[in-house]
Amino acid sequence: MSKVCIPESEFAARVQRVQEEVRARGLDALLVHADEADLANVRYLSNYWPIFETAGVLVPAEGEAIQIIGPESETFARDRSHLKKVRKILEYRESAEPEYPELELDTFASIFAELGVRPKRIGIAGMSILPVTIYEALRRDCPDAEIVRADDILTNLRVIKSEAELACMREAFRISEIALEAVLAEIRPGMTELQVVGIAQRAMYENGAEYEGHPTYVLSGVNSTHAIGRPSHRVLQKGDYVQLNIGARVCGYSSSVGRPICLGKMTPEMRRLTEVGLEAHYKTQEWMQVGVPAKTVVEKFYKFVQDKGCGDNLLYGPCHGIGLMEVERPWMESTSEYPLVENMTFQVDTFLYTAEFGLRWENGVRIAAGGVERLSDARMEIIELDV
Amino acid sequence: MSKVCIPESEFAARVQRVQEEVRARGLDALLVHADEADLANVRYLSNYWPIFETAGVLVPAEGEAIQIIGPESETFARDRSHLKKVRKILEYRESAEPEYPELELDTFASIFAELGVRPKRIGIAGMSILPVTIYEALRRDCPDAEIVRADDILTNLRVIKSEAELACMREAFRISEIALEAVLAEIRPGMTELQVVGIAQRAMYENGAEYEGHPTYVLSGVNSTHAIGRPSHRVLQKGDYVQLNIGARVCGYSSSVGRPICLGKMTPEMRRLTEVGLEAHYKTQEWMQVGVPAKTVVEKFYKFVQDKGCGDNLLYGPCHGIGLMEVERPWMESTSEYPLVENMTFQVDTFLYTAEFGLRWENGVRIAAGGVERLSDARMEIIELDV
Repeated sequence: MSKVCIPESEFAARVQRVQEEVRARGLDALLVHADEADLANVRYLSNYWPIFETAGVLVPAEGEAIQIIGPESETFARDRSHLKKVRKILEYRESAEPEYPELELDTFASIFAELGVRPKRIGIAGMSILPVTIYEALRRDCPDAEIVRADDILTNLRVIKSEAELACMREAFRISEIALEAVLAEIRPGMTELQVVGIAQRAMYENGAEYEGHPTYVLSGVNSTHAIGRPSHRVLQKGDYVQLNIGARVCGYSSSVGRPICLGKMTPEMRRLTEVGLEAHYKTQEWMQVGVPAKTVVEKFYKFVQDKGCGDNLLYGPCHGIGLMEVERPWMESTSEYPLVENMTFQVDTFLYTAEFGLRWENGVRIAAGGVERLSDARMEIIELDV
Repeated sequence: MSKVCIPESEFAARVQRVQEEVRARGLDALLVHADEADLANVRYLSNYWPIFETAGVLVPAEGEAIQIIGPESETFARDRSHLKKVRKILEYRESAEPEYPELELDTFASIFAELGVRPKRIGIAGMSILPVTIYEALRRDCPDAEIVRADDILTNLRVIKSEAELACMREAFRISEIALEAVLAEIRPGMTELQVVGIAQRAMYENGAEYEGHPTYVLSGVNSTHAIGRPSHRVLQKGDYVQLNIGARVCGYSSSVGRPICLGKMTPEMRRLTEVGLEAHYKTQEWMQVGVPAKTVVEKFYKFVQDKGCGDNLLYGPCHGIGLMEVERPWMESTSEYPLVENMTFQVDTFLYTAEFGLRWENGVRIAAGGVERLSDARMEIIELDV
């Protein structure tokens, strides 16, 4: 069972560092947002994880950080959040927008009044997920405030993982590899893609996951060409090529293990591209050295795949950050100037596709002196199942 | 296996009705939004269902409706969406905001230019989930346009279910009841709440679900007080009171079956409140007659529970709409003036709680002449497991 976790003291230290940065930037407060699909910034500061409703953390320049929730989440938030000050605001309600005429709720205005602050400058972390309705409530309640993007306050903290975070991630990858083995042991022609998802789900929960790190991919036949996709009721056939991506979540931290498999023998074309992908994947890991600019890894990856004659099979760069989200900042793109730093964590995400099939070799790594630490590495081989 | 589905002709008819309403309201277009957590309006019009990225459907006053996706979802959207015109816009990307320097993408400006329209008035369906970043891209690209909320265009269509929709919902509830039986057969002291979730998940996928309709609730002991909650690593004990809510999704349509159970004998206080809830639940179903104003059901429910001396155990009203979302419009609140109409579908959601435990009896119903059709009804009894 999963015993790893982030100690409460680490949450308190995170809030303190955010508050220092809020003051350093001359902000009156930072508003951090999360929803059911992107829990990261709120979970990072309070351990709270919204469902149905959304959630925020307001970190004022002075005073206690505040957990913001919707009208129905109070008992849950009081038990789960490490922040003692919990306030309910209507606009954090469910997307169906119930009115709750019987409940007394707070507003941004009442919260700032309680803080004794008339804000002039408010930072937002998570503008790409903040609903317009919450943004407009903030504008309405804080008419004098300039509202600015400040995602980087959280990103700069989250990008370097602590020992406790790494322990959660190692555990998440361990569980994902168990679920992968369960799938390989049970997957058979005649099952639907979705039935295979059920095998992975039970194995994840049985072994200590708190949720999936991302919706599970079991994409077969032409569905395997989907860089992003959802499993379907398609019935697996003998000879099918299948894109598997299985990710367990532990203490908020995501993982994902991606393997291309065949329910039988691969065609020569499948085998060739699968092998190119496998080689490119390990090469990418070799290039990921401390101090190397991220874009150098991208350039080498593109050149390597192009030199193999597979340039047309590319869609995007070779890596993205992983942590509380299976995909988080920073990405590795040809525009990525930042250098790799010890204890950054990435998904090496080697995706290649044709019109008929697609494959993804995917593993987590930690940037480390002397070369990456692999967070997953099982079954990195041509997998042709005898079914 | 799940053979029910919404025919493609029904999607086309939905788009046509939306387009008629767009014209009737003098809008140049309606922009409909969905994300990983709230798929409803986009799924309703195109069958597409975003993951990692978000998605939109733009219904112009004249011409073909357009499926809007993020940079990585093209192969998936081409296979899954019934809309033939698919356009990629940067702001529909993942929340980590990659730049995709190698990709050529569309913008709202290029899409309206292609339509030959300089919009003056654009409606939004889904403002409560629309990210500020997409809203600002729309403002930037359509500087002359007034942007107005128009959720009700979709709500008015979605609130009355067709025969095909009802078939999907009946199937989803059938699967949820199978998963409930699987849980009742296997749940034991010593398991964690999350391990029980895994039992439900596998049963749902095995029997034809495409996903969960909502994250599964297995909330035990004091966690059962959470009106909204997430299962934890808490180890189940003999004598625990457990709030179970299990919901499978079929063709986009959600379900949820809620039962309070005890791993042993209930205390007299538990048994009393569980029985009051059960009686209130069936009374609520009786009150839900065609033509009755929704608020009348709410008033009768509150009065019934108060007359039983349990007014302090209430948090919110007795019902909410269900369909593509497990919670969708309309809610039933004391402010709900609308009358009940045949083929509306509701969750009868009877939630009562104390400081120590909470319970939810929950079933789907269809409003029908002569009384509700029950979409689920298994195990509506005091459930004390001999474990």
